Amino acid sequence: MTNTYQPPQIWQWQPGNGGAFANINRPVSGATHEKDLPQGKHPLQLYSLATPNGAKVTIMLEELLALGHAGAEYDAWLINIGEGDQFSSGFVDINPNSKIPALLDLSSDHPLRVFESGAILLHLAEKFGEFLPSGAARTETLNWLFWQMGSAPSVGGGFGHFYNYAPEKFEYPINRFSMETKRLLDVLDKQLANNTYVAGETYSIADIAIWPWMGNLVLGRLYNAAEFLQVQEYQHVMRWAHLLDERPAVQRGRMVNRSWGELHEQLHERHDADDFQHKTQDKLETSS
Amino acid sequence: MTNTYQPPQIWQWQPGNGGAFANINRPVSGATHEKDLPQGKHPLQLYSLATPNGAKVTIMLEELLALGHAGAEYDAWLINIGEGDQFSSGFVDINPNSKIPALLDLSSDHPLRVFESGAILLHLAEKFGEFLPSGAARTETLNWLFWQMGSAPSVGGGFGHFYNYAPEKFEYPINRFSMETKRLLDVLDKQLANNTYVAGETYSIADIAIWPWMGNLVLGRLYNAAEFLQVQEYQHVMRWAHLLDERPAVQRGRMVNRSWGELHEQLHERHDADDFQHKTQDKLETSS
Repeated sequence: MTNTYQPPQIWQWQPGNGGAFANINRPVSGATHEKDLPQGKHPLQLYSLATPNGAKVTIMLEELLALGHAGAEYDAWLINIGEGDQFSSGFVDINPNSKIPALLDLSSDHPLRVFESGAILLHLAEKFGEFLPSGAARTETLNWLFWQMGSAPSVGGGFGHFYNYAPEKFEYPINRFSMETKRLLDVLDKQLANNTYVAGETYSIADIAIWPWMGNLVLGRLYNAAEFLQVQEYQHVMRWAHLLDERPAVQRGRMVNRSWGELHEQLHERHDADDFQHKTQDKLETSS
Repeated sequence: MTNTYQPPQIWQWQPGNGGAFANINRPVSGATHEKDLPQGKHPLQLYSLATPNGAKVTIMLEELLALGHAGAEYDAWLINIGEGDQFSSGFVDINPNSKIPALLDLSSDHPLRVFESGAILLHLAEKFGEFLPSGAARTETLNWLFWQMGSAPSVGGGFGHFYNYAPEKFEYPINRFSMETKRLLDVLDKQLANNTYVAGETYSIADIAIWPWMGNLVLGRLYNAAEFLQVQEYQHVMRWAHLLDERPAVQRGRMVNRSWGELHEQLHERHDADDFQHKTQDKLETSS
């Protein structure tokens, strides 16, 4: 196969040529329609979806609530990115980048917008004084938090897109991003060979940021790629992935804003701690 | 052109098939050779290269020194990534991810490793109490710092790689990452239409993180892509790019660990404030 493509002098947009999600990718930003976001009764209003980046924040909030922080009570509203909810004027006001998750913090005098999953984790960790140790351990935790932010695009927008979502299987990008994803798994594996959690012996926002991507990847829940990437090679990542997967707050966090998969794992919106119980009740009734 | 590629069941590494930098990309992490890093006399030891991620930190350090923070004195050592310096045992000890920049902070009782450019900016901002405002402005600054960390891979590892470094011009990835790069430029342009600096009226680590990528891109210094991406469309980004480009600390920061381009812009290592003067002297002598 000979590749004869030469880019033009000036790039031109060709709408609809991008595989799955092509309809929501554009070369411009900003709102496409006027619509306010709904608002509930809790101090924290979350607008999200249960993708790995969304799950980071719902896991964090469930962990905070499990520790008894009533101030972490939240309303989680479903943003259907396939329908373009992220381009409403209300959403763009909170996150001009039109990506989930986006958080509105109503607990102080003025509403505070927080966007980018890493910024939201750091905001909540500092607000409640949890999951971010002090001193040298804080520095190490932030090293890994930023490592996650800088590397996830190679896993999601890189490997996940080209292995799973692109309109055709392109060999070169699949090889490029498979190599990088395996390298990143190996970096994490070596770190977890010597540490219970990512940044040391303390469970932190580094774990909460990394697990929805790398944990789900080695558990075979992302991109159907466990065999392709030979994830069983990363035995320390696997040990840690199971450790977190057993946490009740992680299990609850994974359900929130989930609108696909098994019905009993879906909780489209979350407004109250009881919402999970009702789901469990649903599950029992369905299976009986 | 019909694409008939189908991925194998299990991905296999094909070394050397990755265009420029193929020799330094691997699916595994860790050291390839035993070698200690050099260490100078200053409290901060930086191991880096003048790529956009490297420039973030040298600009930050020069800005701190310009404000009179003697504690920000630093030795900047050149890490030649083409030669694999980032795979030495010494470098991997500081950054197990083998990417520049990496910082060793010797100012407290125990040496502190800081890796990922965003984590280094945050560490320095908090250490010296500069370029990170408090209250709501802090949240907004961190929003944009994390936005930069999450979006740069689409600009560098995405657009830059496929437009500039890949062994062939692949149409689909070039279109995908050009679209995303233009979208990100548009997000930034709208933000800078209403704000002098990225996070408001205060110059901050958000500017210092974003400028080496987006500023250099619209100034035509990255990937020779100014016409292709029609960067003149982003007039607010352009205004801000020039504003920062005029700052002496930015000009000094751009030179540090630079081993390519115009000779008078190169300062391979930086150990003293006088090093820039000597460069200027060199320049005068060369041009006279």
